[in-house]
Amino acid sequence: MKINEHVATLESSYLFSRIRQKVKEYKTQNPGRPVTNLGIGDVTLPLVPAVVDAMTKAVSEMGVADTFRGYCDEQGYLFLRQAVCDYYVKKDISLHPDEVFISDGAKSDLGNILDVFARENRVLIPDPVYPVYVDTNVMAGREIVYIEGTIDNGFLPMPDWNVKADIIYLCSPNNPTGAVYNKEQLETWVEYALENSAVILFDSAYEAYIQDKDLPTSIYEIDRAQECAIEFCSLSKTAGFTGVRCGYTVVPLKLVSSGVSINKLWLRRQTTKFNGVPYIVQRGAQAVFSEPGLAQIRRSVEYYMENARLIAQRLAELGIWYVGGDNAPYLWLKCPDGMSSWTYFDYLLSTAGIIGTPGAGFGLMGEGFFRFSSFGKRNDIITALQRL
Amino acid sequence: MKINEHVATLESSYLFSRIRQKVKEYKTQNPGRPVTNLGIGDVTLPLVPAVVDAMTKAVSEMGVADTFRGYCDEQGYLFLRQAVCDYYVKKDISLHPDEVFISDGAKSDLGNILDVFARENRVLIPDPVYPVYVDTNVMAGREIVYIEGTIDNGFLPMPDWNVKADIIYLCSPNNPTGAVYNKEQLETWVEYALENSAVILFDSAYEAYIQDKDLPTSIYEIDRAQECAIEFCSLSKTAGFTGVRCGYTVVPLKLVSSGVSINKLWLRRQTTKFNGVPYIVQRGAQAVFSEPGLAQIRRSVEYYMENARLIAQRLAELGIWYVGGDNAPYLWLKCPDGMSSWTYFDYLLSTAGIIGTPGAGFGLMGEGFFRFSSFGKRNDIITALQRL
Repeated sequence: MKINEHVATLESSYLFSRIRQKVKEYKTQNPGRPVTNLGIGDVTLPLVPAVVDAMTKAVSEMGVADTFRGYCDEQGYLFLRQAVCDYYVKKDISLHPDEVFISDGAKSDLGNILDVFARENRVLIPDPVYPVYVDTNVMAGREIVYIEGTIDNGFLPMPDWNVKADIIYLCSPNNPTGAVYNKEQLETWVEYALENSAVILFDSAYEAYIQDKDLPTSIYEIDRAQECAIEFCSLSKTAGFTGVRCGYTVVPLKLVSSGVSINKLWLRRQTTKFNGVPYIVQRGAQAVFSEPGLAQIRRSVEYYMENARLIAQRLAELGIWYVGGDNAPYLWLKCPDGMSSWTYFDYLLSTAGIIGTPGAGFGLMGEGFFRFSSFGKRNDIITALQRL
Repeated sequence: MKINEHVATLESSYLFSRIRQKVKEYKTQNPGRPVTNLGIGDVTLPLVPAVVDAMTKAVSEMGVADTFRGYCDEQGYLFLRQAVCDYYVKKDISLHPDEVFISDGAKSDLGNILDVFARENRVLIPDPVYPVYVDTNVMAGREIVYIEGTIDNGFLPMPDWNVKADIIYLCSPNNPTGAVYNKEQLETWVEYALENSAVILFDSAYEAYIQDKDLPTSIYEIDRAQECAIEFCSLSKTAGFTGVRCGYTVVPLKLVSSGVSINKLWLRRQTTKFNGVPYIVQRGAQAVFSEPGLAQIRRSVEYYMENARLIAQRLAELGIWYVGGDNAPYLWLKCPDGMSSWTYFDYLLSTAGIIGTPGAGFGLMGEGFFRFSSFGKRNDIITALQRL
């Protein structure tokens, strides 16, 4: 048997294990000194009551013969797909439930969607970037071209019309930078995709953090995007579902390549390699989209955004360049005094007991930058900022 | 963008939709006449109390800040991987928790595992077969050779040493036939795999239904199997988890190809394209392996096996050839009077109001055969058998 050499050559991601190692050493050498994690990508607030109630009820249903549910439709229960459609109606976007696929999270679908595309596609990926976009394409042996995020473009790179690409990754609000594309910028991307017969894989996992009503929370707010874009969203950050595992992927019926419906290809992929999301989880997700659920998760988002505001305020006081934090839970800052990402990591940890994420872990263009996250606890963040 | 033509050429599976259509027509034409489904592949008994209690507690933990859990290790919580190891100890098999990967079900992992193998592998698949083995390899463009299950070999095909293969699928107890390989047969398969440097993908999803203590419930009961086999198991049929979604895959540390650890490749695949199974579900799965859990699921298995015994008894009375039903929830019968699978389907439905699954839906060698399942409700089965 021959292995897939592309997987074998893929380097292990040492980013977070290296951080863990350094923090461990610091704590050993500095017992009793406070350490605060401002690098955390995971949420800290518990599930909201509407979700807990719905899941408790669903568990109990599963223990009774009359209400027990076995295999579900791989695409997800209609009650949840309809709830997602209703959520999009609030954005003035009309979807059919057949266009919505319930998943166990955006990460899975962002990787698995590649099954429906040929290996001979050229992939366009922004740098810095969520490493999953790169690694999944390396695994499949695809050619990757990068577009550079810089201070000059506010870490919102735009298409180079001289470069032809087939598959384009966009993440807005962005992980790791917290930057958000405006309508005009996304219009340009849609125009570029249509011109190149390319598909945009649009990661909107942080859409719930957008505060500015003029910024698009979905690629489908852009005209004709349904002809060229797949949208991936997750309840991980929207509703604290990082440990519950539920997301949704929208594959529009209008998305067709050489007469073949991508929606039908994806359905065939999912019915063959996936067996759907737990009933209990789907009931929890449905509750997120209920009126009480939406009100409750809004308060969680406000809590994290107030954290982001406090971090941003302190960075401004210190005169540190940054982007993000106003419509996203992440802040992306330039390491002061020309420090490298890892030098700044060591400096922050030793002088202020603060852990962040070195930008170099997100690609070449991330070197010299640093990510703060607002998912921590308020008091921890306040005391850490005093030490910054 | 170019699509993956292999997915596009894959035919939709019409088996179950065709059955649904035929049943609907029958019911319209024969209002009031009883119809019983003996073809059902889904379980009907509810979750056992140990599982319901564990999941209720886990949901409640997720609603409280101090006990809330976010992202878990993609490989699964150690408490569950350890519980799986303890379950194998009962089979006299010693595993390390690093060898156990918690999944959302065997179907996902059986498809996704192919990511770690090159396309240039020759795949050996028994016929008749669970269609997922074939479809996932067609999607990837791999060459498939079939080995034939027949009445002569009791639907337990053995290797042809003249045929070289790299990836071998075995399912025992078998879906759809209910046939179970004995130790000597599996020893031959392991010998063949080692000789060919091939990997066996061993689907043991129905292992809990084995009654005969001499039959292996895991490929690792065979000497040296840890050098050539990956085992996929699921709690779907073991504990009624079809709608809960949890399984486990064992990739032994001894499984190495050209110096590369397949365990490490799979870990890299999973950390890149998967984000783990819900905490709530993992607590439910842990409860399955507890002493009360094991006792409770044993009663469910006994219930289904009594159904199987009743079906087998009636088939024997009628002089119909069949296999399975003694150590598996499925019975595989030869359609009487040389009828084709679909002719027998129509005949059974119109004369006895019984729905089964035509063997032709499981491959060429399934033509002329028929699958009954024992997952129905006792009274429904008893009255249906009276009409048979």
